[in-house]
Amino acid sequence: MDYRKIKDQDIDVEAAAKDDVEESYPFVPSASSSIGEPKIDINRIKPQWKRKSLVTFALTILTSSQAILIVWSKRAGKYDYSVTTANFLVETLKCAISIIALASAWRTEGVTEQNKLTASLKEVIVYPIPAALYLFKNLLQYYIFAYVDAPGYQILKNLNIITTGVLYRIILKKKLSEIQWAAFVLLTAGCTTAQLNSNSDHVLQTPVQGWVMAIVMALLSGFAGVYTEAIIKKRPSQNINVQNFWLYVFGMGFNAVAILVQDFDAVVNKGFFHGYSFITFLMIFNHALSGIAVSMVMKYADNIVKVYSTSVAMLLTAVVSVFLFGFHLSLAFFLGTIVVSVSIYLHSAGKMQR
Amino acid sequence: MDYRKIKDQDIDVEAAAKDDVEESYPFVPSASSSIGEPKIDINRIKPQWKRKSLVTFALTILTSSQAILIVWSKRAGKYDYSVTTANFLVETLKCAISIIALASAWRTEGVTEQNKLTASLKEVIVYPIPAALYLFKNLLQYYIFAYVDAPGYQILKNLNIITTGVLYRIILKKKLSEIQWAAFVLLTAGCTTAQLNSNSDHVLQTPVQGWVMAIVMALLSGFAGVYTEAIIKKRPSQNINVQNFWLYVFGMGFNAVAILVQDFDAVVNKGFFHGYSFITFLMIFNHALSGIAVSMVMKYADNIVKVYSTSVAMLLTAVVSVFLFGFHLSLAFFLGTIVVSVSIYLHSAGKMQR
Repeated sequence: MDYRKIKDQDIDVEAAAKDDVEESYPFVPSASSSIGEPKIDINRIKPQWKRKSLVTFALTILTSSQAILIVWSKRAGKYDYSVTTANFLVETLKCAISIIALASAWRTEGVTEQNKLTASLKEVIVYPIPAALYLFKNLLQYYIFAYVDAPGYQILKNLNIITTGVLYRIILKKKLSEIQWAAFVLLTAGCTTAQLNSNSDHVLQTPVQGWVMAIVMALLSGFAGVYTEAIIKKRPSQNINVQNFWLYVFGMGFNAVAILVQDFDAVVNKGFFHGYSFITFLMIFNHALSGIAVSMVMKYADNIVKVYSTSVAMLLTAVVSVFLFGFHLSLAFFLGTIVVSVSIYLHSAGKMQR
Repeated sequence: MDYRKIKDQDIDVEAAAKDDVEESYPFVPSASSSIGEPKIDINRIKPQWKRKSLVTFALTILTSSQAILIVWSKRAGKYDYSVTTANFLVETLKCAISIIALASAWRTEGVTEQNKLTASLKEVIVYPIPAALYLFKNLLQYYIFAYVDAPGYQILKNLNIITTGVLYRIILKKKLSEIQWAAFVLLTAGCTTAQLNSNSDHVLQTPVQGWVMAIVMALLSGFAGVYTEAIIKKRPSQNINVQNFWLYVFGMGFNAVAILVQDFDAVVNKGFFHGYSFITFLMIFNHALSGIAVSMVMKYADNIVKVYSTSVAMLLTAVVSVFLFGFHLSLAFFLGTIVVSVSIYLHSAGKMQR
C-alpha cells in the first residue's frame, strides 16, 4: 500500500516535470513554444493529485446526473425541442463560461503568453478536428440503426472503451502495463455485463455491416477523445480556458451548420426555443458543465481516467434510478459492477508495474 | 515475460524443497514422519511442472465430459438407476484402481514406508472427514430447494469459488497476492455471468435462509476440498495411491450407508443394477477417473488450480454442447468467458508479486 503511494507520487513528479516541456504528439503540428513555465516544484504534487481527483469526481457526478436528467425528461414526455438548437446552446454556454473565466484571469494576471486568446492559424487549425470527428460519428449513428436496435447499440457502444485504450497507446505513445490492459478488457466486459437484459442476445445477430459501423464509430469517438487530449496536453501550461474557447467556438460553428441543414424550417416557423422546458435548460446547463469537466480531465488526467469516470457514472445512474424511478437492478448489473470495481483496483495496482 | 518464467521456476524450486519436509497443517494431526525422502534436485522442476499441467489438463477434460455425459443421459431419458448405487460403484472403482496401481508399485519397488497400505489409527482417522463433509453438504442440498430453484442453485454454487480461496488461505496458510485475490473475485463473477439466463434474476429474491444455507454449503464444500489437500500434502512423498485408497474406502463406506438408508427396498426388490444403461457405466467410469484426477491435482497442484480447472471445464462444456446438442451461446456467456480468461491471466501474472 505504502509502496504504491510512493510510486504514485513518482509518477506525479514525472507529470510535473513533463508539465514544463512542450510535448510532441504525432498528428498535432507543433505550436509556438511555451514561455515562462514554472520550474519543477515538489509542493505542486499534492495539489495536482487533488485537482486530478476533483475534476474526475466532478465528471463522474455530472455524467451520471446527465443520464438521470434524460430519463426524467423522457418520463415527463417526449422531446419537443430541436436537439440541434440545444447542442448549439451547450457549445455557446461553454464558450461563454471560458471567456468569463479568461476575463477574470486577465484582470488578476494580466494578458500573458499563456492566457492570451489570439493564436496563429497553425495553432488553431487543429481545434475543429475533434468536433468534425464527432460529427462524422453522429452521422453514422443514423445509418447503424438499419442493422442494430437501440439496446444493441448501447451494448456495442462499449467498444469505444477498447478503441480509446488502443488509440491512447498508439497516438499518445503512452504505455499501459499488462495488468492495466487486463483491467481495460475487464472494464469493457463489466460495463457490457451491467447493461445486459433479456433482449441483449439480439446483438449477436448483428450483420457484418453493423459490426463494421460500430467499430468505425468506436474508432471515431476514441480518436476524437485522444486527439482532444493531444491538443490540450500540447501546451501544458497554457490556460485551459484558452484551449476550451477554441474547442467550443468550432463546436458552435458545426452545430450552427447542423441547425441550418436539419432544423432551419422548424426554427424559422416555430422559433428557436420552441418546446423548451425548465428541464431542457437544466440539461443544457448540465451538458455544458460536463463538457468543461471532460476538458479538465483531459488536461489534468487523461482519456483512461475519463473512460473509468464515465463507466462509474453509468453504474451510479442505475443505482440512483432505483431510488428515483423505482428501477430494479439485475443480477447482471451486480456482476458487472463487481468486474468494473476489480478493474478500477487493477488499473491502480497496475501502475506499480509501469 | 521472461521475468515471470524465472519467478515461476523459483516457486517450483520452493515447492520441490517443501516436498522434503513433512508439512504441518492445523486440524490435521501429525502422522509418522517421512523417511528416505529424495534431496532437492533441480532436474525435478521440469517434470514436476509437466506433471502439474498434465493432471490439470486431465481434470479439465474429464470434468467437462462429465457434464456432457449428464446432458446426454438426460436427453436419452430420465434417470432409471438409483444414484446411491452409482455413487457406491464410483468409490469402489476408484478404490480398485488405487489397489491395482499399488500392487504394481509393490512389484517394482517392493513394499516401502511410502507405499505400504497399513497405517496407524492416528494417521487414518483424518481420511473420513472430507467424505463426511460432502455428506453433510448433500443432505443440505435437499433442504435448500425449499428456498431456491434449480437454476438459482447453479448460480449460488459459484460461492464455493470464494470460500475455497478463503479457506485455502486460512487453513493451508498459503498466501495469494492481491492480484490473485482480484483474479479469484473475477473468476466467481465470470463463471456466474457465463451461466446467466433470463430466469437468473430470481436468485436475487432468495430469502435469508436460502443465502445462509448456500453459504454454509459453499463453506462445507470448500472445507472438504482444502482438508483433502491438507491430508494429501501432509506426507508429500507418500504414494498417492495409498492416500487415495484411504480416502475412497471411507467414501465406499458412507455410500453403502446411503444405499441402506435411501434405496434399500429398491435394491432388494429390483436388484442393484436396475435401470443401468451403457451410458450409466460410462458416467461411473468418468466420475471415477475425475475423482482420481482431483486427488492428483491436490497432490501435485492445489485447490486453486482445481477451481480454475473446473471453471474452464464449465465453459468448455458449453462450447462443446453447441456442436453436440446445438445449444446457443448467449452474450452473457461470451462476457463471462472473457472475464474468466482475464482471471486466469491475472492469477499467473499475480505470482510475480508473491
